[in-house]
Amino acid sequence: MVFSSKLIEDAVAQFAKLPGVGKKTALRMVLHLLKMQHEDVAAFAGAFSKMKQEIKFCAECHNVSDSDVCLICASPGRLHTQLCIVESIRDVIAIESTQHYNGLYHVLGGILSPLDGIGPEQLNLSNLRSRVATNEVEEIIMALSPTIEGDTTAYYITKELKDLPVRVTTIARGIAFGGELEYTDEMTLGRSITKRLPIENYMSVQGKS
Amino acid sequence: MVFSSKLIEDAVAQFAKLPGVGKKTALRMVLHLLKMQHEDVAAFAGAFSKMKQEIKFCAECHNVSDSDVCLICASPGRLHTQLCIVESIRDVIAIESTQHYNGLYHVLGGILSPLDGIGPEQLNLSNLRSRVATNEVEEIIMALSPTIEGDTTAYYITKELKDLPVRVTTIARGIAFGGELEYTDEMTLGRSITKRLPIENYMSVQGKS
Repeated sequence: MVFSSKLIEDAVAQFAKLPGVGKKTALRMVLHLLKMQHEDVAAFAGAFSKMKQEIKFCAECHNVSDSDVCLICASPGRLHTQLCIVESIRDVIAIESTQHYNGLYHVLGGILSPLDGIGPEQLNLSNLRSRVATNEVEEIIMALSPTIEGDTTAYYITKELKDLPVRVTTIARGIAFGGELEYTDEMTLGRSITKRLPIENYMSVQGKS
Repeated sequence: MVFSSKLIEDAVAQFAKLPGVGKKTALRMVLHLLKMQHEDVAAFAGAFSKMKQEIKFCAECHNVSDSDVCLICASPGRLHTQLCIVESIRDVIAIESTQHYNGLYHVLGGILSPLDGIGPEQLNLSNLRSRVATNEVEEIIMALSPTIEGDTTAYYITKELKDLPVRVTTIARGIAFGGELEYTDEMTLGRSITKRLPIENYMSVQGKS
């Protein structure tokens, strides 16, 4: 692409660094900003510059936070005896959006993957033990990706906390709601059959939120 | 989507204002910025804040420019006797990227559309006449969209400049290179047949750049 302006070229190059944004999309965004009012562009730049400077990570659960302890950990209305272990901030947002969970989180910031050089030291595990003890946590819910790395991480954490009086569960795996059986992958479908549930069990699970 | 941080929520809301960006894509971009180095985020914000503040519009052709007269209009290597009339900056970039045109441009900044309240006064037409006279322009190339509005605009400009000794042409219309005949829309295909060219004519056009 040939630009007659260095200023536009630089702005396009910066936008094209964002994930999923190519040069054409970047140009579209830049021309959109060009048409916007000065104060709106300033607000746009300000929002994420401010975010980058002021964002903190919760000392408890390692989720992103506006203060030292995040809103979830600080909320008295939430069940402090449940801990949901997730890989990233994105997973917290996904689970919060379901409105089906009212406990706390623990964000690992990654997943065990020896090939990528990610061992237990690289994950936010140092305060997990003390959190479980302090909050008198009764249940730890593993909400990790159903991959080899996810399973390994869940296994590692379960083993580490073996001596504590805590129940470890994992989110249900099976065919997706509204999905079509014939398009479900073989592994998921196979495991769904092996790990089948009594229908009353499923009904009662569905009834609870 | 539920965010546990107001800072993230604001940044996502700002990104979601960009064209073609929904909340999920915006979140992906924001989390990407969150992982970036401080100086890279500053460079990102700086590039388009600078662009917004310093960008100018060429006094000659109304294209975006880093100086009072854009690089294209200022270039002695370009044919000052050819003027290509386009709707927007985006079209200049598209034509420049083909490397098949070496004349000057004239960016209208819109297209005649009475229903949207866009008349000749809203377009950059005031200096077109003087440009044609000053540069002793021999040919005006209409590179407008093949729509009713585009055709109306081309017709209006042609009529306005009728008394000047200038040849008015339009970019060729027809089936696209590499396109499949059966998927071409009826109107394009129909007009391509009506406005067919002697094959020698086409060959010689293809030979020239």
